[in-house]
Amino acid sequence: MCEKKLYVVGIGPGDYEQMTIKAAGALNRSQVIAGYTVYIDLIRESFPDKEYLSTPMTKETERCRMALEKAKEGHIVSMVCSGDPGIYGMAGLVLELAENYPEVSVEIIPGVTAACAGAALLGAPLSHDFAVISLSDRLTSKNLIEKRLEHAAISDMAVCLYNPASRHRGDYLLWACEILGRYKDPQTVCGVARCIGRTGQSVEIMTLEQLGKVPADMFTTVYIGNSQTREIRGNMVTPRGYRYE
Amino acid sequence: MCEKKLYVVGIGPGDYEQMTIKAAGALNRSQVIAGYTVYIDLIRESFPDKEYLSTPMTKETERCRMALEKAKEGHIVSMVCSGDPGIYGMAGLVLELAENYPEVSVEIIPGVTAACAGAALLGAPLSHDFAVISLSDRLTSKNLIEKRLEHAAISDMAVCLYNPASRHRGDYLLWACEILGRYKDPQTVCGVARCIGRTGQSVEIMTLEQLGKVPADMFTTVYIGNSQTREIRGNMVTPRGYRYE
Repeated sequence: MCEKKLYVVGIGPGDYEQMTIKAAGALNRSQVIAGYTVYIDLIRESFPDKEYLSTPMTKETERCRMALEKAKEGHIVSMVCSGDPGIYGMAGLVLELAENYPEVSVEIIPGVTAACAGAALLGAPLSHDFAVISLSDRLTSKNLIEKRLEHAAISDMAVCLYNPASRHRGDYLLWACEILGRYKDPQTVCGVARCIGRTGQSVEIMTLEQLGKVPADMFTTVYIGNSQTREIRGNMVTPRGYRYE
Repeated sequence: MCEKKLYVVGIGPGDYEQMTIKAAGALNRSQVIAGYTVYIDLIRESFPDKEYLSTPMTKETERCRMALEKAKEGHIVSMVCSGDPGIYGMAGLVLELAENYPEVSVEIIPGVTAACAGAALLGAPLSHDFAVISLSDRLTSKNLIEKRLEHAAISDMAVCLYNPASRHRGDYLLWACEILGRYKDPQTVCGVARCIGRTGQSVEIMTLEQLGKVPADMFTTVYIGNSQTREIRGNMVTPRGYRYE
C-alpha cells in the first residue's frame, strides 16, 4: 500500500535561508501546501507550482482537517508553520486530529523557533535555563499564565514570551512585566526582537522597568533576563557561568 | 577596512539535512571551522577542504579564544555548535570573550535545538508553555537546579531536560524525577529522545514514575509533560487547548 503522507513543516522565522535543508526538501516534494495565510505568503515565491490552501487565524482546526483530508486523498501534503511546528504551532493539533486518519502517516519536520532566532539577533539571552510562555489567553486562562510567570521569576529563570500582545490584548506585556517585577529586579536586562527574518526586522535592549511600555504585537518575541544577564557591546547575554580571566 | 568575521553556527541535531540553508552557507564561506571534536566529526564530510580546529570537552574558553584569534588574523571563521548556539551553546561565551576583540564582528546563526528536534520525533510534547533546564552542575549549583525544577512543576509547565546524565552524574535523572514528582502526578506522560539526527536515534514514551530508571547520557533529551499531556497513537502530545469534536 502506498503510504499517505502529511508533513508538518517548520519554516523557521520567515526568510527562505533560515529553513532547514530537510524542510525545503519536504516542500519541494509536496503537491499541496497548507497553512495560515501569512506563512503561505512567506514561502509562495520559493515554491511555485504548488496547490496552496490557506485559512485565516483562529481557523486552525479547519486548516489541519483540510490538510489531513488532502493527504487521505493521496496527495503529498505539507502543513507549514512559522518557526517550529512543536512550539505553539500545529504539530499537536494535527496529531490529535490524525487519530481519525489512521491511513495518513504524519511526520513533524522541526524548524528554528522564534525563541532561538530572536535570541541570535539580540546576542545570547537564553544561554541558561529558561521558560517559554505565551501571553495569549485565547486557549489558556490568565490565572495559569500568571502562575507560570511568577514561578519562572521566583526561580530566576530567563523568560521568553511569545504572543506578547495583540489588538485585543494591548496591555498584556505591561501586565506580565508587573508580575515578573514582583520577583525580578527592575534593572533586569530585557530585549525584544521584532519581525524576525522578515521586512522590518529589529531588536531593542532595555530594562524590565522599561519593557512594559515598549510597542509589541504578534510578531514580537520578548526576552527577560535572569539575575546574571548583562549587556555586552550592545548584546544581551545570559552567561552560562564559564570562568575566564 | 575589511570586516573580520566570526560566525557562531548552530548545525542542528547532527545530520546535514537538519542544518539551515544559512548555516550551510556560512560553513561553505568559512576558511576555518572550530568546534568540539564530536560536532566537527558530524560535519567534516559535508565540508571538506577546510582548516579544522577542535578542543575536547571542558576546554570551551580555549576553543572560543582560538576561533576569535583566527578571525582577528583575517580568516573567515565558523565556530560550530550542535543544535542552537544560544541554548547551552557557545554564543554567550563567544560574545563575552569578544569584548577583547573589538575588530571581530560576531554573527550568531541559529539552528534547530535538541528540544525541538527531539520533540518532533516524539510527537508534540512542548506544544504549551515549558521550561528548559540543564541537569549539569558543572557551572550551576544543584540547589538552583532543584529550585527551577520545583517551580516549573508547581506551575504545571512541561519540562525539557538537557544533559540529564553523564559518567559522573549517573543518578541525576532519578534525582530530578523525585523533585518533579513532589508536584507532578507519577502517571504524567514523559518521553526521551536519544542520539537525535545521529546513528542510533530512538525515542521512548513512559510515565514519570518510570522515567528515573531509563538509561540516559549526554546525548539524551528528556521531556516531562504537563497535566494535560497524553499519548496518542504512540506520540507524546501536550495539547495547546484547541476544542474540536
